[in-house]
Amino acid sequence: VFKVDWDMEQAEKNGFDHFMLKEIFEQPNALQKTMTGRFDEENNKVDFQELDWTADKVNNWNKIYIVACGTAYHAGLIGQNAIEELTRIPVSVEIASEFRYRRPIIDENTLVIVVSQSGETADTLAALRQSQKVGAEVLGITNVVGSSIAREADNVILTMAGPEIAVASTKAYTTQVLSFYLLGTYVAQMKEMISDEYREKLVKGIQAIPSQIEEGLEHTKGLQWYAESIKDSQSVFFLGRGLDHAVALEGSLKLKEISYIHSEAYAAGELKHGTLALIEEGTPVIALATQDEVYEKMLGNIEEVKARGAQVMGVATEGNMKIYQYVDETCYIPATLSLLTPLLSVVPLQIISYYTALALDKDIDKPRNLAKSVTVE
Amino acid sequence: VFKVDWDMEQAEKNGFDHFMLKEIFEQPNALQKTMTGRFDEENNKVDFQELDWTADKVNNWNKIYIVACGTAYHAGLIGQNAIEELTRIPVSVEIASEFRYRRPIIDENTLVIVVSQSGETADTLAALRQSQKVGAEVLGITNVVGSSIAREADNVILTMAGPEIAVASTKAYTTQVLSFYLLGTYVAQMKEMISDEYREKLVKGIQAIPSQIEEGLEHTKGLQWYAESIKDSQSVFFLGRGLDHAVALEGSLKLKEISYIHSEAYAAGELKHGTLALIEEGTPVIALATQDEVYEKMLGNIEEVKARGAQVMGVATEGNMKIYQYVDETCYIPATLSLLTPLLSVVPLQIISYYTALALDKDIDKPRNLAKSVTVE
Repeated sequence: VFKVDWDMEQAEKNGFDHFMLKEIFEQPNALQKTMTGRFDEENNKVDFQELDWTADKVNNWNKIYIVACGTAYHAGLIGQNAIEELTRIPVSVEIASEFRYRRPIIDENTLVIVVSQSGETADTLAALRQSQKVGAEVLGITNVVGSSIAREADNVILTMAGPEIAVASTKAYTTQVLSFYLLGTYVAQMKEMISDEYREKLVKGIQAIPSQIEEGLEHTKGLQWYAESIKDSQSVFFLGRGLDHAVALEGSLKLKEISYIHSEAYAAGELKHGTLALIEEGTPVIALATQDEVYEKMLGNIEEVKARGAQVMGVATEGNMKIYQYVDETCYIPATLSLLTPLLSVVPLQIISYYTALALDKDIDKPRNLAKSVTVE
Repeated sequence: VFKVDWDMEQAEKNGFDHFMLKEIFEQPNALQKTMTGRFDEENNKVDFQELDWTADKVNNWNKIYIVACGTAYHAGLIGQNAIEELTRIPVSVEIASEFRYRRPIIDENTLVIVVSQSGETADTLAALRQSQKVGAEVLGITNVVGSSIAREADNVILTMAGPEIAVASTKAYTTQVLSFYLLGTYVAQMKEMISDEYREKLVKGIQAIPSQIEEGLEHTKGLQWYAESIKDSQSVFFLGRGLDHAVALEGSLKLKEISYIHSEAYAAGELKHGTLALIEEGTPVIALATQDEVYEKMLGNIEEVKARGAQVMGVATEGNMKIYQYVDETCYIPATLSLLTPLLSVVPLQIISYYTALALDKDIDKPRNLAKSVTVE
């Protein structure tokens, strides 16, 4: 017997040490593929030919549930924000294992969106079936053609991330987030709730993302150094407001999954209601401050943790110089619409997790206790 | 100058070493006072004479928001569950500092419930004003007569917890939770959505709670011993499903606030989607398993963390013997309806936090970095 597994795996990693890093770097391409064919370029509109929705149907929805687990749940939090903002339909995001055991209030006027990279997540699939049983329309967002969710949902948006091998999801997450932006814009178009001007800005903003990530990925040395500086910390905190809070949750989960450092994310305004007690001299805090409307508020929260001795890394949009005086390190992301920053700000957090786990010599692609696709309940 | 502060404080503590412990033990009385005068005893109905709601008004509500911070937010999570279950009106629970900076979808058909012990929480008060501006009806739940929220809300439910001195909230939380049970029952009555039979069960169940807590508080030696066993842990995890998840969040916040141990709560079904990686030999896990419908599922989750070496304390309802074989320790709470268990299960978690902080010699009533009432933004 000739064992060739090792060589094949090396080949598939395409020169990267781990699948996770390879997949992080594949994001510009994965996002490009996911948006390809989904624009009406001439009119700056989103065009989802695969969806069989009529304006009548869309106008009847008075409630949207997004149901998912883990990283896909975090993508759903961005989706909630984008869809509510663009369509003014109330959206709830639910953890699938919680949703299915409650008696959720759904009927024929509800759209249920289930999100799962593998399309086989057991709790999410159960939520899909339960929703269809009471007459709700179900949209699946998944990365796998022919998966259970792809087959059973009434409509499907396929993310074009390609195979994701690392247990910690990266490109599947960002393509899910992108799908939500496209979806929100599409529904807003059908409901005639979006101005031509804003839609054009949004579409152009989305189209610029892949090259902006590419640009960001050219300079990761600083993040690598930062990762080494936090590797021996007992706890790491991620803070943000609004969309930044959703990204903070995802950044924290990444770090947990592969470095086994106990990290936690907070809505920055909640700190004073308890968690501030955990901040002491040297506690690493990663503070996201990419949202224009709450930028000043966020600087105030950074001051609070600095006053208790925290070591703060700020993540802000290029051009926002003021944060510089508040933090110990700053990571700038390219400028984009506030709504779209998650696709850019999550990338440095993925990189930080990767290099932290690397510095700790952990099994990055196959973290202990975890499986890639959770097909049991 | 004669300094008598010390003596007065001792007197006010009524024989307890700390206000927190005193306030934990005051819960039966505080709950009793909060329900007094709010029942139509003859008909086993809830009677909220202070609310000026007509059946017409109540029937117009198609959405309820509960807006709060910190512990009050956790009470809101129980409220969401109770109100949705009893009235079938969709409820969203929102962190006040997040809610106010989004554009929440509220109008004259929305009831907004703001919850704050002090009635002065800055972000919660701002949410109240913002909601009124767009025409929503606002109900305040607060412990302080004459507070800003008590004055400005359209209607008010006063919790009768009495002054709460310890920064970590205990009796304010349980009286808020009780208020939500009463409120849910009251709205269900007005909408004629609750059977006489179930209403009677519920009312009798609520009325039994104070003496059930009293009974539980007679035996806290085991919890004290358990607290000492976890005091040197780096991380403590709380797990639960449904209402148990909401209580887990509150138990975790208590422990964080006063012991400064990094604890975190999870929906038990989410473990496999990332956090399981943090569980290793000896990690303390407090697993709530009081919900009949997901009891077996919860035992499955306990098996998962046990298999990774966790030291598990189970919290279950008296009579559920099966959990015994799955966990290292069990804390039983008196039997009640599944909907009402939070009022009983949170008490041992409060006690565990208290004794953990005591064993660590922390300043229990005035934890570092925290203030009792957060009146700044």
